[in-house]
Amino acid sequence: MKKIINNPDHIVDEMIEGYVSAYPDIVKCHEKNSRIVMRANPKPTDKVRIIIGNGSGHEPIAMGWVGEGMLDANAVGELFAAPSPSLIQETIEAVDTGAGVLVLISNHSGDLINSKSALVNAKAAGCNVDMLVMYDDISSAPREDSRNRRGAAGTTFIYKILGAFAEQGASLIELKHLGETIRDHTCTLGVSVNPGISPLTGQEMFSLPDDKIYVGMGVHGEPGIAELEMTSCDEIVEFVMSKILSDLPFQSGDRVLVMVNNMGGSTLMEQLIIYRKIDSILKRGNIEALSPLIGALVTTQETAGFSISLCKVTPQMEALWNAPFKVPFFYKV
Amino acid sequence: MKKIINNPDHIVDEMIEGYVSAYPDIVKCHEKNSRIVMRANPKPTDKVRIIIGNGSGHEPIAMGWVGEGMLDANAVGELFAAPSPSLIQETIEAVDTGAGVLVLISNHSGDLINSKSALVNAKAAGCNVDMLVMYDDISSAPREDSRNRRGAAGTTFIYKILGAFAEQGASLIELKHLGETIRDHTCTLGVSVNPGISPLTGQEMFSLPDDKIYVGMGVHGEPGIAELEMTSCDEIVEFVMSKILSDLPFQSGDRVLVMVNNMGGSTLMEQLIIYRKIDSILKRGNIEALSPLIGALVTTQETAGFSISLCKVTPQMEALWNAPFKVPFFYKV
Repeated sequence: MKKIINNPDHIVDEMIEGYVSAYPDIVKCHEKNSRIVMRANPKPTDKVRIIIGNGSGHEPIAMGWVGEGMLDANAVGELFAAPSPSLIQETIEAVDTGAGVLVLISNHSGDLINSKSALVNAKAAGCNVDMLVMYDDISSAPREDSRNRRGAAGTTFIYKILGAFAEQGASLIELKHLGETIRDHTCTLGVSVNPGISPLTGQEMFSLPDDKIYVGMGVHGEPGIAELEMTSCDEIVEFVMSKILSDLPFQSGDRVLVMVNNMGGSTLMEQLIIYRKIDSILKRGNIEALSPLIGALVTTQETAGFSISLCKVTPQMEALWNAPFKVPFFYKV
Repeated sequence: MKKIINNPDHIVDEMIEGYVSAYPDIVKCHEKNSRIVMRANPKPTDKVRIIIGNGSGHEPIAMGWVGEGMLDANAVGELFAAPSPSLIQETIEAVDTGAGVLVLISNHSGDLINSKSALVNAKAAGCNVDMLVMYDDISSAPREDSRNRRGAAGTTFIYKILGAFAEQGASLIELKHLGETIRDHTCTLGVSVNPGISPLTGQEMFSLPDDKIYVGMGVHGEPGIAELEMTSCDEIVEFVMSKILSDLPFQSGDRVLVMVNNMGGSTLMEQLIIYRKIDSILKRGNIEALSPLIGALVTTQETAGFSISLCKVTPQMEALWNAPFKVPFFYKV
């Protein structure tokens, strides 16, 4: 299996170089550490900053969303590896103006441990910093134990909505509280059908028989809840949606954000056929979908498959979702 | 190889159903023929319409770009097959207000034959209609025989710029002339590294040894100019850019649009590493790149690989490129 790269040891640094050279009006590297990707034009200094540290290999999420209306900076880790506590701390300090910094954390053990450690040190150094742990993958723990759920594609709703809220001048505590509300109203479940390839090893990241699919696999290939027989799109979506709808649960009259995320190697044709079925299920349940997010936004290299995320919105969340943004790789109409 | 679809015979219709149900504020099906995807909110009737008929399987191009500032309608053909002359004619008549209709044609024999036939019949029926044949793939014919070149990803520049020009009220002849200028200033060359899968057969669409890449393969797997040894990204990009730059030729002081198109199965990480090298080559040649288009915009299912397109711009083209648009799947910042 071929990847169009140079030395695998340099993929992350070369990716960042390409990114900031492509969009210098929007993003730049921190002058002291090129693993910190920041807004080229920061918000006014009296507004709270939002950052995240995360592993590479899931683009465009995080790094691709630095810019107006979303993230202030991203600490870019190695492939599928959380950035170090010191890199996250440096990122906090790089954006800190005294107005406050919110550190988003997608719930995976490495990200959580390293981010928490960074927060302790940043606070000790005088930063006004807090954190929001994000989780949405309903396959990784039951709802009553939701804080043990993994972060998955549905965290996207938090990036966008809090990014807009911070742009409007929300305080650190307001941002954290709204982030918790979004998180607690979001459910994601994914289905993987074919493995992606690690750019480090050139090998497939998992194996799956030709007639099987995984339900609930994590973004790094963490085991899911079920290995099912491959079947039709409509049957797969019916299964996934039944799990999602009964989890919150979503109810007649709800307004929801919908995301159909391509794990990387699926086609838009498939995603639209998937959305067709989602639409019919939502209409059947009298649940009203806002304009959906359909695309490859949270990927695991060329892994083929998709996840569906639903978030029940309030009018405030909806207005912030539709607020303007300007980042290189967020595909919302 | 698994695809998330239902009956392969219904993929195109189900894809369209999913699409129009997702974005009803932007697109709809023609009430008499669901294979015609049109703007939900047409331009004022005194403005020229722009349409195209093309085969499915390359999403998001064409169907995904119906909306404000781009296409007025798309005649959606079967997988990798041009729509019939009668479907293209119906599409012309569906959008015609008397202000004129420009039919874009991506240069492939089926599209050309069927679109020309549709034009003859539409003119006979009283429509004020003209056509623009688009081609940009420098591997398919030498520059002195450029009208025998195939349409490839660089046609994207025409969709966007003419869409904006029509929105501003340009006449049919002005649109055609500007389209010819864009076309004559655009060069594309692609490299395929791994095959996509046909959703009809479930089989790989071509075969390629593990240590080889194809240069210049067409969007349907048409043969390219060379089968090369797999090598580093930088060497591949150096080769592709040398062919593109010498074709027009592009010169010191030029301002260019740049597109790095993902054929479907490559990662954004790879595309950014590719752009890193493009950026260094352009800077070396004192050629100024506008904010690039990087994404999976013209695909052949999950085919892995990329193409690079360059277009030398005039100030008029640049202003139209940056004009507003609202379509579901065009990823420009």
